[in-house]
Amino acid sequence: MRDVAIIGVGHTKFGKWETKTAVELFAEAALQAMEDAGVEGKEIEALFVGSALPDFGEGQAMINVHCTSELGLGQIPSTRFEGACASSTVAIRDAHMWVASGEFDVVLVGGTERVLPMGTPLATRTFAMAMHAVSEVPAGLTFPGVFALVAMLYSKTYGIPLEKLREKMAHVSVQNHRHGALNPLAQFYRKYGDLKVEDVLGSRMVCDPLTLLDCCPFSDGAAALVLCAAEKARKYTDTPVYILGTGQGTGGAMGRFGEELIRPPSRVMSARMALKKSGLEPKDIQILELHDCFTPAEIIALEGMGFFEWGKAADAVEDGQVDIGGKIPTNMSGGLIGKGHPIGATGASQVCMIVEQMRGNAPKGNQVDPVPETGMTDTMGGSFGTLSHIVLGRSRR
Amino acid sequence: MRDVAIIGVGHTKFGKWETKTAVELFAEAALQAMEDAGVEGKEIEALFVGSALPDFGEGQAMINVHCTSELGLGQIPSTRFEGACASSTVAIRDAHMWVASGEFDVVLVGGTERVLPMGTPLATRTFAMAMHAVSEVPAGLTFPGVFALVAMLYSKTYGIPLEKLREKMAHVSVQNHRHGALNPLAQFYRKYGDLKVEDVLGSRMVCDPLTLLDCCPFSDGAAALVLCAAEKARKYTDTPVYILGTGQGTGGAMGRFGEELIRPPSRVMSARMALKKSGLEPKDIQILELHDCFTPAEIIALEGMGFFEWGKAADAVEDGQVDIGGKIPTNMSGGLIGKGHPIGATGASQVCMIVEQMRGNAPKGNQVDPVPETGMTDTMGGSFGTLSHIVLGRSRR
Repeated sequence: MRDVAIIGVGHTKFGKWETKTAVELFAEAALQAMEDAGVEGKEIEALFVGSALPDFGEGQAMINVHCTSELGLGQIPSTRFEGACASSTVAIRDAHMWVASGEFDVVLVGGTERVLPMGTPLATRTFAMAMHAVSEVPAGLTFPGVFALVAMLYSKTYGIPLEKLREKMAHVSVQNHRHGALNPLAQFYRKYGDLKVEDVLGSRMVCDPLTLLDCCPFSDGAAALVLCAAEKARKYTDTPVYILGTGQGTGGAMGRFGEELIRPPSRVMSARMALKKSGLEPKDIQILELHDCFTPAEIIALEGMGFFEWGKAADAVEDGQVDIGGKIPTNMSGGLIGKGHPIGATGASQVCMIVEQMRGNAPKGNQVDPVPETGMTDTMGGSFGTLSHIVLGRSRR
Repeated sequence: MRDVAIIGVGHTKFGKWETKTAVELFAEAALQAMEDAGVEGKEIEALFVGSALPDFGEGQAMINVHCTSELGLGQIPSTRFEGACASSTVAIRDAHMWVASGEFDVVLVGGTERVLPMGTPLATRTFAMAMHAVSEVPAGLTFPGVFALVAMLYSKTYGIPLEKLREKMAHVSVQNHRHGALNPLAQFYRKYGDLKVEDVLGSRMVCDPLTLLDCCPFSDGAAALVLCAAEKARKYTDTPVYILGTGQGTGGAMGRFGEELIRPPSRVMSARMALKKSGLEPKDIQILELHDCFTPAEIIALEGMGFFEWGKAADAVEDGQVDIGGKIPTNMSGGLIGKGHPIGATGASQVCMIVEQMRGNAPKGNQVDPVPETGMTDTMGGSFGTLSHIVLGRSRR
């Protein structure tokens, strides 16, 4: 199969959008990506859109159709992917396949979501539908509950007292908010930049042991990419970023995970698949954007992807090993916690943020130096229901 | 790219399922398809599931995850496609690409939906979300309304008085109910087998000029297929059916169609794409399963796919040209009207029905003789938002 390059990226500000629908947000990000790539609408051969619950958010199913129409792209094939929070990563993986196979040369892919109009109670309830409707939702489980359980199990399994673990978790929040505060596209731009561990520990309890500052916010926003067959990428850009490998793994009802809840096989399998495809190992990856929907989520993601031994990432975060200058700089965009989490847009946003790092275009203070050669994203949908990973590089394999 | 074969099919009865969830219905169809193919779970490399609104139907988003888990397929990549009524055709088209590209050898694909627990008012309201949420839904438009407009425009455009057109439309209902009554998998098995044109005209008015018998029912059900690289298909079956070509086209808000509402460009583009890929023309296709959600839908589908001149299919239906022995036998399964329409399952069901015809396994009275060599499906999601077509053959290209 052919190599595939990212030749353009677009990204709305994440946060509260009162005046645009999810379709309009997608169009804004997509037009930016097309302009960035120097691609005209008539060159786009297909559209791939990730969106988790646009029907609940705005009463719009088949959102891909109206994104296509809004952009004036004619009758080109256009497909919606729903994989909860991993919706647009799955869309990117699929778009990659259609270009890699030789079927299309230039396609547009991204994600969009408008969550805030629902309000927190309805948003919490609707997003919980990404868990098992028969066993988990009736038990009253929501996503803060899932990651509270993750923290409790992590504490017990690795013998880290919960109060100690909470401090380590708080470092995730502090670092990601610090990065988000420097990112003009972030929901918390210029906010929470000087958060302290004590602030996180002392903020309002949401679901023991998670406080409000352990949680990512609900957000509105969109992100988009133009993908192109690698051999044609130089026609459009001097700074292509290549998709070196993708992975996707599937979970199930949480009850089936048992003790593996903190090392979900769906993540391990997907990350390994993406790395294997790329011919790389964790030691070869220079930056990460990963799914920190709650602080313990970042810790177990670092381990599940193979960047730290089981039970060691909480210490590593506290030691600054995932900050700039550390072993593996992570979530320089602010991550879900600092940048925001417009569900279906998050995966595409993660890839956009890696591309900007690889172009040396990340915000001052967040740019890794020297400009990274490789990077990887991790996106999780549901309670480890869908994991998807993308490995990116400035050079072809 | 490689040729791809269908080596197994599975299909629940369509109708009212009180005792199974959409996940369980999918598992039933999938296990049938795997047994039919002689494929074990460990051989399945990926799962592709079409489902339109499982979150509204049963509070289950990410239904693909729980289908994978229910089937014990481990962590294999599993993706949900939402394209309203075309959800599973889009899933099949995508699954085909992943096998054709060489990435996977054996995959499982299908669709599932449980609509009836919602009841007609909620189902009508939720499915209307596949139209444009900003302009069409607030105008009060529902799908019966869309096809009432289609009938009115067809009458006006081609100068066929509405009362005459209603009689021609009624022939669609009579034929498809007659076929459905012979199909044990159909919702209306052994019902409405001897319907008369007068019965259709005289049944309860739903949306002028459409009566109840001009409309397909809401249904629960699932259908699934096992796809395999063609070169390996003979290992599993003596009767592979090959996917010769697929197509997909995109519409938009109906207002943008204008006079083209009765010849939607999304269908024309998609059907041509599928036929071109297969190297065939309409004259080469021997049977059809197409999207007769309402009687005028069948008429305009026959024209949009290129089987009759614009404005001529209504007469053709009345003349028996789409019945067995006619120019192009259509919807021998009963179609959506006679077999039922579990939204996300319909596309996969259409392909299953063509495969059974090509194996000579269709129900007595519905089997085309001699056994057809080629066939084609047409599935429409939303108000022509997504059209997708699949061309099938007993021989490789």
